Amino acid sequence: MFKVGVIGCGYWGPNLIRNFIQLKKSDVICVADLDEARLAHMKRLYHTIETTKDYKEIIADPEIDIVTIATPVHTHYKLAWEALSAGKHVFVEKPIAASADEANALIALSEKQQRKLMVGHTFLYTEAVRKMKEIIDSGELGELYYISSQRLNLGLFQQDINVIWDLAPHDISIILYLLDQEPQMVTAIGASHINPAVEDVAVLTLQFAGSLLGFIQTSWLDPDKIRRMTVVGSKKMMVYDDVQPTEKIRIYDKSVEKPMHYDTYTEFHYSYKYGDIVIPKIGGSEPLRTELSHFIECIENNEKPLSDGESGLHVVKILEAAQKSLDNGNVGVALS
Amino acid sequence: MFKVGVIGCGYWGPNLIRNFIQLKKSDVICVADLDEARLAHMKRLYHTIETTKDYKEIIADPEIDIVTIATPVHTHYKLAWEALSAGKHVFVEKPIAASADEANALIALSEKQQRKLMVGHTFLYTEAVRKMKEIIDSGELGELYYISSQRLNLGLFQQDINVIWDLAPHDISIILYLLDQEPQMVTAIGASHINPAVEDVAVLTLQFAGSLLGFIQTSWLDPDKIRRMTVVGSKKMMVYDDVQPTEKIRIYDKSVEKPMHYDTYTEFHYSYKYGDIVIPKIGGSEPLRTELSHFIECIENNEKPLSDGESGLHVVKILEAAQKSLDNGNVGVALS
Amino acid sequence: MFKVGVIGCGYWGPNLIRNFIQLKKSDVICVADLDEARLAHMKRLYHTIETTKDYKEIIADPEIDIVTIATPVHTHYKLAWEALSAGKHVFVEKPIAASADEANALIALSEKQQRKLMVGHTFLYTEAVRKMKEIIDSGELGELYYISSQRLNLGLFQQDINVIWDLAPHDISIILYLLDQEPQMVTAIGASHINPAVEDVAVLTLQFAGSLLGFIQTSWLDPDKIRRMTVVGSKKMMVYDDVQPTEKIRIYDKSVEKPMHYDTYTEFHYSYKYGDIVIPKIGGSEPLRTELSHFIECIENNEKPLSDGESGLHVVKILEAAQKSLDNGNVGVALS
Amino acid sequence: MFKVGVIGCGYWGPNLIRNFIQLKKSDVICVADLDEARLAHMKRLYHTIETTKDYKEIIADPEIDIVTIATPVHTHYKLAWEALSAGKHVFVEKPIAASADEANALIALSEKQQRKLMVGHTFLYTEAVRKMKEIIDSGELGELYYISSQRLNLGLFQQDINVIWDLAPHDISIILYLLDQEPQMVTAIGASHINPAVEDVAVLTLQFAGSLLGFIQTSWLDPDKIRRMTVVGSKKMMVYDDVQPTEKIRIYDKSVEKPMHYDTYTEFHYSYKYGDIVIPKIGGSEPLRTELSHFIECIENNEKPLSDGESGLHVVKILEAAQKSLDNGNVGVALS
Repeated sequence: MFKVGVIGCGYWGPNLIRNFIQLKKSDVICVADLDEARLAHMKRLYHTIETTKDYKEIIADPEIDIVTIATPVHTHYKLAWEALSAGKHVFVEKPIAASADEANALIALSEKQQRKLMVGHTFLYTEAVRKMKEIIDSGELGELYYISSQRLNLGLFQQDINVIWDLAPHDISIILYLLDQEPQMVTAIGASHINPAVEDVAVLTLQFAGSLLGFIQTSWLDPDKIRRMTVVGSKKMMVYDDVQPTEKIRIYDKSVEKPMHYDTYTEFHYSYKYGDIVIPKIGGSEPLRTELSHFIECIENNEKPLSDGESGLHVVKILEAAQKSLDNGNVGVALS
Repeated sequence: MFKVGVIGCGYWGPNLIRNFIQLKKSDVICVADLDEARLAHMKRLYHTIETTKDYKEIIADPEIDIVTIATPVHTHYKLAWEALSAGKHVFVEKPIAASADEANALIALSEKQQRKLMVGHTFLYTEAVRKMKEIIDSGELGELYYISSQRLNLGLFQQDINVIWDLAPHDISIILYLLDQEPQMVTAIGASHINPAVEDVAVLTLQFAGSLLGFIQTSWLDPDKIRRMTVVGSKKMMVYDDVQPTEKIRIYDKSVEKPMHYDTYTEFHYSYKYGDIVIPKIGGSEPLRTELSHFIECIENNEKPLSDGESGLHVVKILEAAQKSLDNGNVGVALS
Repeated sequence: MFKVGVIGCGYWGPNLIRNFIQLKKSDVICVADLDEARLAHMKRLYHTIETTKDYKEIIADPEIDIVTIATPVHTHYKLAWEALSAGKHVFVEKPIAASADEANALIALSEKQQRKLMVGHTFLYTEAVRKMKEIIDSGELGELYYISSQRLNLGLFQQDINVIWDLAPHDISIILYLLDQEPQMVTAIGASHINPAVEDVAVLTLQFAGSLLGFIQTSWLDPDKIRRMTVVGSKKMMVYDDVQPTEKIRIYDKSVEKPMHYDTYTEFHYSYKYGDIVIPKIGGSEPLRTELSHFIECIENNEKPLSDGESGLHVVKILEAAQKSLDNGNVGVALS
Repeated sequence: MFKVGVIGCGYWGPNLIRNFIQLKKSDVICVADLDEARLAHMKRLYHTIETTKDYKEIIADPEIDIVTIATPVHTHYKLAWEALSAGKHVFVEKPIAASADEANALIALSEKQQRKLMVGHTFLYTEAVRKMKEIIDSGELGELYYISSQRLNLGLFQQDINVIWDLAPHDISIILYLLDQEPQMVTAIGASHINPAVEDVAVLTLQFAGSLLGFIQTSWLDPDKIRRMTVVGSKKMMVYDDVQPTEKIRIYDKSVEKPMHYDTYTEFHYSYKYGDIVIPKIGGSEPLRTELSHFIECIENNEKPLSDGESGLHVVKILEAAQKSLDNGNVGVALS
């Protein structure tokens, strides 16, 4: 039985607590938060957990094996560092840290300490994203042309990070997982409307090798809740609509072909293929449950988590590049 | 009765012919095209029209008052120039010309010749776009934050122009009409997949004064036909979905407000307003009919068309800037 | 070249005229209607046709091979009878006649005269209904359980017939075509709200052999335009949504199975299968074009039309039974 | 603090338990079920509750104020009778009992014992149904013409009751609440496909005074989950789509009007009004929470619950009539 300490029980922490309690191989021992009302609420829901305003009690507790961190991004590094230093396995919410330097330091420390470091890229643990990965890897879509993603909704403004750092980690982690490669160039354009210091709408472009493109549109200001990703390949196309309760993925047997050769200008024409659409069955298991089970298995079997520190680092490098692009007049920023 | 000569009867020309015939104040005299099969088809549909492979017959025909041009973009300038020079009123499909210089030259000539020059920004003549304009001008949406547009579909590849020149004129003309101002900076990112020389997917960003942004995503490679524009304001938001047969516009009584002041960090919070949604009734009149009636009225009453040469020029200036951005590593291009 | 006379050019007649003109093997010679304005409008659209207020001119014209009848239902019998008597092939809009007796008389006359009699059950000529027939006949759905259909919209009130006679012929003809059997019992319940004499909303139930059911809901008073048919089988299920522009049919790999046996009450459970959904590609050819081509082919090759007089009779028998049920307190009416 | 005993913790019972625990004025003391695995599961979720296989322990416990019954329908009467006899307030899931006689007996006993008897017509406690009631009562829809409801899905077969007794209580209770009158005649048609003794698809028709109709279509065999109710009035129309997460109600400013008089047959025409659509904001509070709070308030203040025994009786009377219609060849059954 792994004993878990949870730092932060605001928006997402309660989901971590519930799942660690319901899993057979883990239990939550202690929850830390600055807000006493939140702690009291957690205590009411789960009588057996201890609560504290001082996260250091969790770090210092020799009984605790795993520390999970669901706090504002700027605190991730410090908290994860202290937990790893104290010999804990660490699960930290996305993004893993506020900079690539921080992420690199945490990776190094986790290796030195021989402790697992995992980041909460939860979408990698959904059945829909797994299905997309399977379809792409099978070659069914052919050569990939572009992935376009929209993550839009009204509300849930963050105070310490802009909309890119808040929402785009989901899309970036999915796209990197699907493509298994890093972009060469990142461009970001955005604007602030509600809080002058914080972009609330932005578009990211990821340019990969060849002509492969990734577009990510994020907004805290859109009237509709939209979470939609289109993957266009040379043979087929695929749409992932996460807002749909069951029909999350559609595979379109559609494509365009250029004729091999043509003799005259007027003979020139493209050939379009319009075929069936398939909506594969997607199960409804809770991704966070799958994610935390995976974490525990990786600890037990000393295996590399799918969303390990490196995975977190790749996402942060793109966020950093996007921020640099935003801060420098939307210039494209090459990824080192 | 205005007598019309139509140059080009490929994809769009037949719509022009049908409407000019059905309008009470106009009739089509002659149609020119390089493709004899198309001419024969037109002749079969409308027994009374003459057809020719030589557009110069139309230009030279003293009986003809109006010349409409629905040919590839690179021919617009030459054909419009000759028609204006011959004293015709000219209706040219979008974009008005292949460069701002060409557009300027046509505007100057039309003024000199005292003939009307109009460009086919058809969406300005839809009831939906008119309704949006009315709503924005009434102040109902408050201060505008951004307009985001997607124009995606599979097919209808062009050979001589990329997807920006093909599809974005629609979005640009609508956005300029709605906002009544020009952007200060234009950025474009795209890629070619089918034809190496021709971008088939692209994103444009228009940065206006203040924080007002315009996003336009265009693709010839998307599995779904999407024509959707979101207008976000400080008081309300609006979505225009042109694919819907009747419910084209939705007005959301939603907004976000920042608190006026707050004493402590933890007290900080935004206030979200979620209210009713209204779907105003939109009539179903054919926009091309409205557009051509407007053209004829402007000729009769010597008035300035809504989508006159200037309007066409503004769109082309943005297309040129977007092309420059594409050609120069996606750098932002300031509009002079 | 078959020469066609069209009686009635109100709502549907113009579609018949356009298609007979555009088909290579037919041309429209003359159109009759009581309304001079409609005749003038047709003449304006098609310069070459003659028009008349007296349908007898069409019947009497020896040049005319085919008479099509698109007039109020109560006139179908008389007009078709006269046309068949004059040796014409007859295409009559649905329903074929106002009673089974009338339909039987027309069938007998057409056989005696050796002329083709066809009824305009247009939906049998759509690619979507053909696809459904193909899927059902392949056994893919397993044993059929029920077909449920909704045909709802606002408007297009008829004056001489109720909503069942107006809308249900579509659903009845599709269901009979798909099932290839007649119901044993028909029940109808409806009500009149706008015109006291004319039901404007009604539900029909068709009970076939075994437990196979057909439900048809019709309304002239519904806010949404709904044309949706669900076919439930023991192995798969299918939904036909005619309002969708392209994705008209969905095949659900879903079913319920009862366990073969069970020992105790608490062991009892059903097994549900939830699988993929397939949306087959459906072409977009105009069904009326297909229908009229089929009619002409049947005349040329002396073959039985798919929607021949018998087909029309079966539909009318069900309409009559439904009317009887309506008129007799919704009692079930057995089909002889 | 009201102390609650829950009999039955299968499909719905756990929701009752969770809500009674989370409400401030109630707590769950004991849960009874025949299935030990379910009891163990409840115990794991809520450490403090007692569990028993013998419901009589709950009935006999003098500490318990409220007994809730979420067991198969045929047991409702016996359990509710014993609980009322023991002086408990009783909350019983829908339908209140298996017959009108049973329901009447329970009502009489609850009055004699001066204890509250409430039935779980949960939809009456949703914000959407409340909104519909408010709109209808305001007269905004004009005179009501018909209400048509579909409650379709795949699965959740019942063993002891057919689809009418299982699903239609929701629609019936909503319709009675909205209309505030009972139907005069009930007709039902259905069929059994999976279990020969149990109808799995059925259509109910409720005929009210005047021409007002209610249609209810229920199925356990439909591929899509559909919960949709259309209310058509002389001035406006309304659609309630419970499957929508937020946009549950649409009010259509549509209607049909017959002209007051007309001189000739050809002058006859209807006038259709097509106006805006409004989607009012509907809050997302959990209806079961609202329902149980209401129950507790009614006990505290000795008030009549909205869904009291009488309300339950009205629903059961219609279910009985529907069953009689089903059992007698679909004949219409007059409500006494």
